[in-house]
Amino acid sequence: MSLQGRHLIDPNDLTLEEIQRIIDLGLNIYHHPAQYAEICKGKILGTLFYEASTRTRLSFESAMLRMGGNVLGFSDAATSSVQKGESIADTIRVLDDYADILVMRHPREGAPKLASQYATVPMINGGDGGHQHPTQTLTDLITIQHYKGEIKNLKVAFCGDLLFGRTVHSLLKTLSRYPNISFVLISPPELKIPYHLKNDILQNHDVEIIETHCLETHMHEIDILYMTRIQRERFFNEEDYIKLKDSYILNKDKLEHAKEDLLVLHPLPRVNEISYDVDIDPRGKYFEQAKLGVYARMALMALLLGVVESC
Amino acid sequence: MSLQGRHLIDPNDLTLEEIQRIIDLGLNIYHHPAQYAEICKGKILGTLFYEASTRTRLSFESAMLRMGGNVLGFSDAATSSVQKGESIADTIRVLDDYADILVMRHPREGAPKLASQYATVPMINGGDGGHQHPTQTLTDLITIQHYKGEIKNLKVAFCGDLLFGRTVHSLLKTLSRYPNISFVLISPPELKIPYHLKNDILQNHDVEIIETHCLETHMHEIDILYMTRIQRERFFNEEDYIKLKDSYILNKDKLEHAKEDLLVLHPLPRVNEISYDVDIDPRGKYFEQAKLGVYARMALMALLLGVVESC
Amino acid sequence: MSLQGRHLIDPNDLTLEEIQRIIDLGLNIYHHPAQYAEICKGKILGTLFYEASTRTRLSFESAMLRMGGNVLGFSDAATSSVQKGESIADTIRVLDDYADILVMRHPREGAPKLASQYATVPMINGGDGGHQHPTQTLTDLITIQHYKGEIKNLKVAFCGDLLFGRTVHSLLKTLSRYPNISFVLISPPELKIPYHLKNDILQNHDVEIIETHCLETHMHEIDILYMTRIQRERFFNEEDYIKLKDSYILNKDKLEHAKEDLLVLHPLPRVNEISYDVDIDPRGKYFEQAKLGVYARMALMALLLGVVESC
Repeated sequence: MSLQGRHLIDPNDLTLEEIQRIIDLGLNIYHHPAQYAEICKGKILGTLFYEASTRTRLSFESAMLRMGGNVLGFSDAATSSVQKGESIADTIRVLDDYADILVMRHPREGAPKLASQYATVPMINGGDGGHQHPTQTLTDLITIQHYKGEIKNLKVAFCGDLLFGRTVHSLLKTLSRYPNISFVLISPPELKIPYHLKNDILQNHDVEIIETHCLETHMHEIDILYMTRIQRERFFNEEDYIKLKDSYILNKDKLEHAKEDLLVLHPLPRVNEISYDVDIDPRGKYFEQAKLGVYARMALMALLLGVVESC
Repeated sequence: MSLQGRHLIDPNDLTLEEIQRIIDLGLNIYHHPAQYAEICKGKILGTLFYEASTRTRLSFESAMLRMGGNVLGFSDAATSSVQKGESIADTIRVLDDYADILVMRHPREGAPKLASQYATVPMINGGDGGHQHPTQTLTDLITIQHYKGEIKNLKVAFCGDLLFGRTVHSLLKTLSRYPNISFVLISPPELKIPYHLKNDILQNHDVEIIETHCLETHMHEIDILYMTRIQRERFFNEEDYIKLKDSYILNKDKLEHAKEDLLVLHPLPRVNEISYDVDIDPRGKYFEQAKLGVYARMALMALLLGVVESC
Repeated sequence: MSLQGRHLIDPNDLTLEEIQRIIDLGLNIYHHPAQYAEICKGKILGTLFYEASTRTRLSFESAMLRMGGNVLGFSDAATSSVQKGESIADTIRVLDDYADILVMRHPREGAPKLASQYATVPMINGGDGGHQHPTQTLTDLITIQHYKGEIKNLKVAFCGDLLFGRTVHSLLKTLSRYPNISFVLISPPELKIPYHLKNDILQNHDVEIIETHCLETHMHEIDILYMTRIQRERFFNEEDYIKLKDSYILNKDKLEHAKEDLLVLHPLPRVNEISYDVDIDPRGKYFEQAKLGVYARMALMALLLGVVESC
C-alpha cells in the first residue's frame, strides 16, 4: 500500500515492509543528500508544538529544509489560539490549508490521533504525552539498521525508566515484530514495564523477555543497550525521583565485559545516566542516532508527501 | 493608483477598484497556484506580532512561502525588544531593513498606523486591538465573491458580539460602500453595534439596517450570515459573559427556513456559537473562508511588493 | 589563514586582515546584492537564543535568507530543552547536525566559547552576558569604513555606560589595534570603563585615552561619537539608575560645534540617550549602522561557510 497521503500516529500504523522502505530511503538520502536537496520544493511543513520540544521540532525542520521545502508553525501552546477555547478539530481544519504536511506534539495522549481525523494532509505524531513517539522509533530502527546491517537476531537491553518511557514502549513493541529478537529489561522494581505491555508482547510474539534490576549481569551478551533518562516530570514525588535517578548510570567500567560491537543508544536528552567517558567509546552512538533521525524524518515526509514512490 | 509600495492599515485605504483587483488576483492564484509559486523569490516578509495570533500569522506566512518568498519575525512581544523601552518608531526603522514587507499585530489601537509612518517598506495591519483588521475584511470579501460571483444586491446578517467585534465593524463599513447591500444586525441589546458606527454608515451610504435580537426572524431572506464569537476578553465581568455567550448559537434546526444558497461565514476561532452539525451543511463555508484568506493575502502582498502589476 | 570552518567567539579571534576581508566583502554585497542572492542555497543557519534578542536574531536571519539559505532555531530558552537539565555540550552535539552554521546568544558569559568546543560547524557568538558581542563590533567597523573610507587616524568618543556596556568594550579593544586611533571616554565617574580594560589597552597599544564626564568638551574635535544606552538591567538599584540615566543625552544643540562629518553611532535599542532631532541630522547614522550590520553578518557567514573564498 502506498504511503502517500497517510498519517503516522502509532508505529503499528506501518507494516514492517513500510518501515523498511522508510529506513532504506533514509539511508540512501544519508549517503546521497544532494540527490534529494530539491524534492520538496514548494512544500510546507506545519509544526504544531503544543508542548515545547526543541530537538524533535528542529529535527523535523532540518529534514524539510534539507529537501528544499519550507516550514511554518508554533513552538509552544502559549503562542497558539488554544487559549481562545478553540477545539483541536477546528484548529486542524484551518491549519491544513496552510501546510502540505503537519507534525503535532501534544501533552495529551490521543490528541494527534484526533487531529488526524480532521486533517486533509498527512499528519505525523511528534509525541503525545506518555503515549507514542513513532518518529523516535524510526530513528532508533534506522540506527540499528545502519550499524548492524539488519534488524534481526539481536539481544536488546533497555535500561532506566521502563514504566513511563514512551520511547521504550514504542521501540519494544515494534522490535518484537522482527525475527528473533530477545529483550533484557533493566530497571528498579518501581519502574518495570507496565504489565499489560509485557503481556501483550508475550502473547503476540515469540520473544524472550528477561527482567532484572542489575545493569551488569547481561552486559556481556547484549547487542544493543538502550539507555533512558529518568524523567523528573513523570514522578509523583521528589523523594522517589532522587532515590532512583542515579541507580542506573552507564560508565566506561560497566562496559568492560560488553561486546566489541555493542551499540549504546539513547533517545536524548541525557541528564547523567550515561557518563561522559562513554561519549568517546566507539560503542556510544547516541549522537549519531540523533543525526540519523533527521534522515528517517526526511524519508518519512518524502513518502507521505508522495514526492518519492513508496516502492 | 498603483498599490506598489503602499501600506494597508484600514480597509478605507483602498478604493473599491483596488479591493476588486486584490480579490480577482487572489482568485486567479487560487485557480492557478503554480503560475505564482516563484513570484516572491528573494522577498522577505517580516511578521511583527506584539500579540499572539496563530491563525493570522500562519496565514500570512503560508501566503508568502507559497509565492516562493521567506519569512522572519516574532510571534509574541515577550521575545521582542519592547521590554527594553524602545519606541515602535525605532523598532520599525531597524526591522524595515531586514524585510521587504511587514505585517504587524498589536494590542494597542493605532500602533500599526504609527509604525507605517516610519516604514520604508509596505506595512500591513494584522489587527490592532478592537480597531481594524483589514486582511480579515479582504478574506470575507474574496469568499463572498467566490461563492456569490459578485459583491452586490445582498442581504447580509451579522450575529453575536456587534459591539466589540472589530471584524464585524470593518466588514460592515466596507460592505456599505458596495451597491444595494442591506444589513440585519442580530445581537443582545448589550452588544449592539456602536451608535457612532451605525450613524456613520447611515449618513454616508444608501443602506437599510434592521436591528433585532432574534437570530431566526429574518433567516429566510438573508444571503449571508456572518456569525461571531462572543470574546471573553472583551467583557468587563464574568457574569455578563456567561449570561450572554450561549444566546446566539447557530445550529441545523435554525437553518431550516434559510435559503439554499445562504453563505454562513465566521472569522474563526469558533467556540460554540456554531454547532458542529452546521459544519457538514453545504452552506457552512467558514473553513473555506479561512483557506481563501491565504489567497487574499497572497494577492495583497504581491501587489504591495509590485511583483504583479496593479492593473 | 582561511576563515572557512572557524568559530567567532571574540573579536580577537580575527586578525585585522581577516576583519578587513569581512568588511570588504560586506560592502561588496551591499552594493551588489543580486550577485550573492543564491550563494547559501541549501545552507541552514541555526539560531540558538537562550536570551531573547529580536534585533540580533532577525539581523542574522535576514542575512542568511538574503543569501538564499534557510533558518531554524529557538528565540528564547523557555522553548528549548534546557529545562530538562541537558548540558550545553550535548545540545550542541545534536544541533550541529541540524544546521550548517550556528549563532548563540546566552546570558552566561563564556557559554558560546564552551559550545564552540563541541560544534562541528562554525559557531558565532551572538552576545554572552556582559562579555562579548563580536558581530556588533563588525557592524560598527563596517559602518566606519563605509562612511570614513578607512579605519585609521580617528578620534573616537564613547559616551554613556562604559562600565557594563559590552559593545563598547569590544569596539574599544578592537579599534585600539588600528593605526592612530585616540579615544575620548565620556561617562559619569560611576560608569567609567573598568580599570583592567583601560590598562590592557594602554599597555598593548600606542593610543591616547582622555576620560571626561562632560559630553561637550571635546565635541568639536571628534570624528566618531558612539552613544550607548544606560541599561536598567545592569544596575544594582533603581535609585542609581534614575539619577544617571538622563545625564548624557545627545541633542541637536550639543552638536552645534561638532565636525560636519562627525559620525554618530549607537548599537541600539535607544531609550532616550539620543533625542529625536538628531535622527534627521545627516550625522546621525545609527539606523544605517543597523542596516550595514546585516551585510557584515552576510559576509561573515559566507566566509565561515566557505561559500566565498577568504582571500
